[in-house]
Amino acid sequence: MATEGNSFAAGRFAVYLKSLYLFFRFLLSLSKHRCMGKLLIVLLLSVPGFTVFAQKEDSAFIKRISDEILANGKAYENLRYLTKQIGGRLAGSPGMVKSEKWGLKMMQESGADNAWMQECRVPHWVRGGMDEASFNVPGKKNWVRLDVVALGNSLGTGKKGITREVLLVNSFEELEKRKEEVKGKIVFYNYRFNDTYINTFLAYRDAGQYRGQGPGRAAKYGAVGVIVRSLSHAADNNPHTGATRYDSNYAKIPAVAIGLRDADRLSEIIQKSKVHVTLKTNGHFLPDTTGHNIIGELKGTEFPDEIITVGGHLDSWDNCEGAHDDGAGCVQTIEILRALKAIGFKPKRTIRFVLFANEENGLRGGNKYAEEAKAKNEKHILAIESDAGGFTPRALGFTGSDDQFQKFLSWKELIAPYGCNEFNKGGGGADIGPLNRALKTPMASLNPDSQRYFDIHHARSDVFEAVNKRELELGAVNMAALIYLADKYGL
Amino acid sequence: MATEGNSFAAGRFAVYLKSLYLFFRFLLSLSKHRCMGKLLIVLLLSVPGFTVFAQKEDSAFIKRISDEILANGKAYENLRYLTKQIGGRLAGSPGMVKSEKWGLKMMQESGADNAWMQECRVPHWVRGGMDEASFNVPGKKNWVRLDVVALGNSLGTGKKGITREVLLVNSFEELEKRKEEVKGKIVFYNYRFNDTYINTFLAYRDAGQYRGQGPGRAAKYGAVGVIVRSLSHAADNNPHTGATRYDSNYAKIPAVAIGLRDADRLSEIIQKSKVHVTLKTNGHFLPDTTGHNIIGELKGTEFPDEIITVGGHLDSWDNCEGAHDDGAGCVQTIEILRALKAIGFKPKRTIRFVLFANEENGLRGGNKYAEEAKAKNEKHILAIESDAGGFTPRALGFTGSDDQFQKFLSWKELIAPYGCNEFNKGGGGADIGPLNRALKTPMASLNPDSQRYFDIHHARSDVFEAVNKRELELGAVNMAALIYLADKYGL
Repeated sequence: MATEGNSFAAGRFAVYLKSLYLFFRFLLSLSKHRCMGKLLIVLLLSVPGFTVFAQKEDSAFIKRISDEILANGKAYENLRYLTKQIGGRLAGSPGMVKSEKWGLKMMQESGADNAWMQECRVPHWVRGGMDEASFNVPGKKNWVRLDVVALGNSLGTGKKGITREVLLVNSFEELEKRKEEVKGKIVFYNYRFNDTYINTFLAYRDAGQYRGQGPGRAAKYGAVGVIVRSLSHAADNNPHTGATRYDSNYAKIPAVAIGLRDADRLSEIIQKSKVHVTLKTNGHFLPDTTGHNIIGELKGTEFPDEIITVGGHLDSWDNCEGAHDDGAGCVQTIEILRALKAIGFKPKRTIRFVLFANEENGLRGGNKYAEEAKAKNEKHILAIESDAGGFTPRALGFTGSDDQFQKFLSWKELIAPYGCNEFNKGGGGADIGPLNRALKTPMASLNPDSQRYFDIHHARSDVFEAVNKRELELGAVNMAALIYLADKYGL
Repeated sequence: MATEGNSFAAGRFAVYLKSLYLFFRFLLSLSKHRCMGKLLIVLLLSVPGFTVFAQKEDSAFIKRISDEILANGKAYENLRYLTKQIGGRLAGSPGMVKSEKWGLKMMQESGADNAWMQECRVPHWVRGGMDEASFNVPGKKNWVRLDVVALGNSLGTGKKGITREVLLVNSFEELEKRKEEVKGKIVFYNYRFNDTYINTFLAYRDAGQYRGQGPGRAAKYGAVGVIVRSLSHAADNNPHTGATRYDSNYAKIPAVAIGLRDADRLSEIIQKSKVHVTLKTNGHFLPDTTGHNIIGELKGTEFPDEIITVGGHLDSWDNCEGAHDDGAGCVQTIEILRALKAIGFKPKRTIRFVLFANEENGLRGGNKYAEEAKAKNEKHILAIESDAGGFTPRALGFTGSDDQFQKFLSWKELIAPYGCNEFNKGGGGADIGPLNRALKTPMASLNPDSQRYFDIHHARSDVFEAVNKRELELGAVNMAALIYLADKYGL
C-alpha cells in the first residue's frame, strides 16, 4: 500500500519549516483575533507548498498514531478483560455495574484529563431463566428440542409454558393473506436473510422488521406466540436475540428467535404435517434502575468549548460476551485516548471518549448525553461511533451539511491507506443520533467489513475469540485519524 | 453500497437494443473480417449511449454472477470436503493423490467442457515423524517443551537429535557481527514480524528472508541447527512452517520454526543465562514422483484459441488443512466454473480453471503449465491467481503493459461494489509467474484483506473453521467479474 515505509523524516522540511514559522509569526502578530486567524489559515492553505507540507505533516502524524496502536495497542487485552472477566452487561444487570466501574478506571488509566460517570435511568429487562422450546408432530411421541432465545424486551410464557400449533409464514404479506388462520397459534416468521446483498446491513434492515414488528403484527390477529428466524446467514444453529417492540394495542405475546438449521428443519416438517411447539420463556421487566455513560475527556488547548465525541456502547445482550457488539467499539474508544496521550498529542479542541449506556434496549444513554449537551448549551462539532463490529475497517460514513461533507471528503487520501478507502454520505450511530437530532452535530460512523457480523451478532458466538487483534486495532487507527484531522481543521 | 438492488430490468433497454441490433447487423454485413470487427467495436464504444448501455449490461451480468455465487454457492461445502475429508496434501503425499482425483471430479461435475490432469514431476519431501524440541538452563533439571515445526525441505537431525547451546540473533546484521560465536551452536533468529505495516504481506516479505536464507547463512559460520521465529503476528503459540532454501556451499543443517510465545519466553531466558536446546527432526527427500495440475476448460465460442487462466494451488503443507492456503483459491476456481455454467454463460474465449501442483516447495506445477503453453504455442491473454487466503476481497493487482493496465483500470467501477475497490499495479501469483515470464501473459491477483492471513499461514490453525463462507464466495465473485470482462473485451 501506498504509505508503507513512508516514515516521517523529521529534518526533511527543516528549512521550509523555519521560513513558514517566521511567516506565521508575522501573520499572527497582525491579529490575535480568531476569525482573522481562520482567514489566515484558509489563505495559507491556498498556497500550494503549504498544502503539500500540511499533508505530509498529517500523513506523518497519522502514521505515528497507527504505529503506536499496532505496536503497543491495549485494545485487544482490554477486550479480553471486558468479555472474559465481565461478560454480558445488559442494562440493569450486575455486568452493567461491573463494566461501568471498569470503564471509568480505563479512562483514568489511559490518560483522560477528566473522567466521570453520567447518570441516566435505564430499563431493566431480565430473561428470568432458560429459554426452552421443542416441537412435536401430532401423533408422534418424541418432542425434539429447538435452540431458541427469547427476544429482548419480550414477556415470558409463564412457568407452564404454552403448547400450540405453528403457523409458518414467509413474510408479512403471507401473514395478511392468512390472518384468519392465526388465532390461537404460534406464528413462525421464516423470512430469510437476503444473501445477495453485499453490504450485510441491508439484509439486516430488510429482515429486521420481523424481529421488531413480528410479535405485534401476529398478536393483532390473535397469535399467542411468535418464533422468528434469526437475522443471520451463519452456517451454525445459534439463535440471535435483539430487541422487539410490542404494539400497545394488542397482547404482548412471547417471542423467540430460532437458529437457522432448526428453522430449515421446522419449515421442512411443516410443509408435510401439522407441528406443535412448546415455548417456555420468562422475560419480564423490573423497575427502571440507574445506569451511566462513562466519559473521559482530553481538554482542548485552543478551543476547549468545541467538542468532538467518539464512542461505542458498553451494554450488550445477556446471552453473549458482546465482543463485537459493542465491546469492540468501547475498547477502540479507550485505545484512541490511550494512543493519543501516549504520543503526546495535545488537541486544540476537547475530545470526549464515551461508553454509552443501554443502546440495545432503550437508548437511554445516548438520549441522556444529548439532553445534557443541549441543556448546557455545549458546542459539539463532530460525533463518531463504532458499533458495527471490530472487523477490518473499510469505510467512514458521514452525516452533515454539503460543505462539511466536502471537508470530510478532503481527508480521504490521508486515511485510505489504513483501510477506510470509502467515504460515504450517511453515517452515525444509534448512540450519537440523539446528539445529531438535538444539536445538528455532524456524525460519522466507522463501517468495517460487514461479511462476518451477522454470523455472531446477538448470538452466543459473539465472543472474544471471534475478534482479530489487528482488525480491532485498525478500526481505532482510522477513527483516531479522523479525530486528529477534525480537531486540527474543524468542521 | 451503490449497486444494491440494481437488478437488471430485462425489458428496460428493449427499444434501444432493437435499433442497436439492426445497426449491428448492418455493420457486420459490411465485413466478416475480424480486424474490421474489432474496429467496429471500438467505433461503437465511442458512441456515448452505447458505452452506458454496455456498462449497464455488464453491471447486470456481474450481479447475476454474484447472486448465483452468494445464493447457491458450493465453494464452502467443497472446501469442507477438501480440508476435512482430504486434509493436508503436500506434493508426493497420499493427500496429493486424493486431492487430484477430487479436483478432476469437481471440474467435471461443475460443467467443464473438458477436464484433464497435466502430469509433472514433483519433489517428495516428507517430515518423517514428529518434530520435537525442548530447552534447558544448564544446571537445572527440567527440560521444557518447545512447540516447533521443521521448515519445509529441511533435513532432519537424525533419530538421536542434537543438543547444543543457543545463540540468539535479532537480525542478519547481528549474525555477521557475532559470526565468531556461531560455530557448533543452534542459531535462533528472533527477527520480529513488523506489526506496523498495514499490508501484512510486506511484513512477510521482510521477515521471510530469515526462513528462506537463515539456515544457509548460519551454516556458513558453522551452526549445527537453526530456530526461526515464526512469520506471524498471531496471539497464539502455533509454529508456522514454510520452505527454506539451503546454500549449496554449506552444510544442510536442521531448521525449525517456533511459536511466538515460546520465542518470547526463550529470548527472555537467554538474556539472563545460557540455554541449551534439543532438536529432533526427521525431514528428508524421497525420489521425485508424479503429480498433476488439474485443468478444466470452458471452450471459447468466438476465439477458442485465446485463453484466460484462473487458478490456485492444490498442494498445502502437511501440518494443516490448507484451508486458506490455498484450498480457498481452489474452491473459488471451481466455483467460478460452476457459477458461469449455471447461469448459462458462453465465453467468447477459452477459460481454463487450474488447480496447480506443488506451489509450496517446488513450483513444478506452474512451471509445467507454462512450458506446455509455450511448447504448444498457446495464446494466453490473462492469468489470474487467488493465493492470499479466502478473506474478504479488497483489491485486484495487475501486471501487464500500460495499455493493458488502463483497460483493466476501466473495469474498476464495475467490480468495486463487490469488494475489490482498489486496482493496483503489480499482481500475479507464484503459479502463474512462469506463464508471465514465458509468454508475457498479463497476470492478475485477487488481494483479499490481509489482516488475518499470517495468524494461520502454514500453521496448524489453517483449518476450515478459519474460513468464512461469504468472504470466500465474494473472492470468487470478484474474480468471475474480471474474467467476464476480460473475456468480453479482451486485453
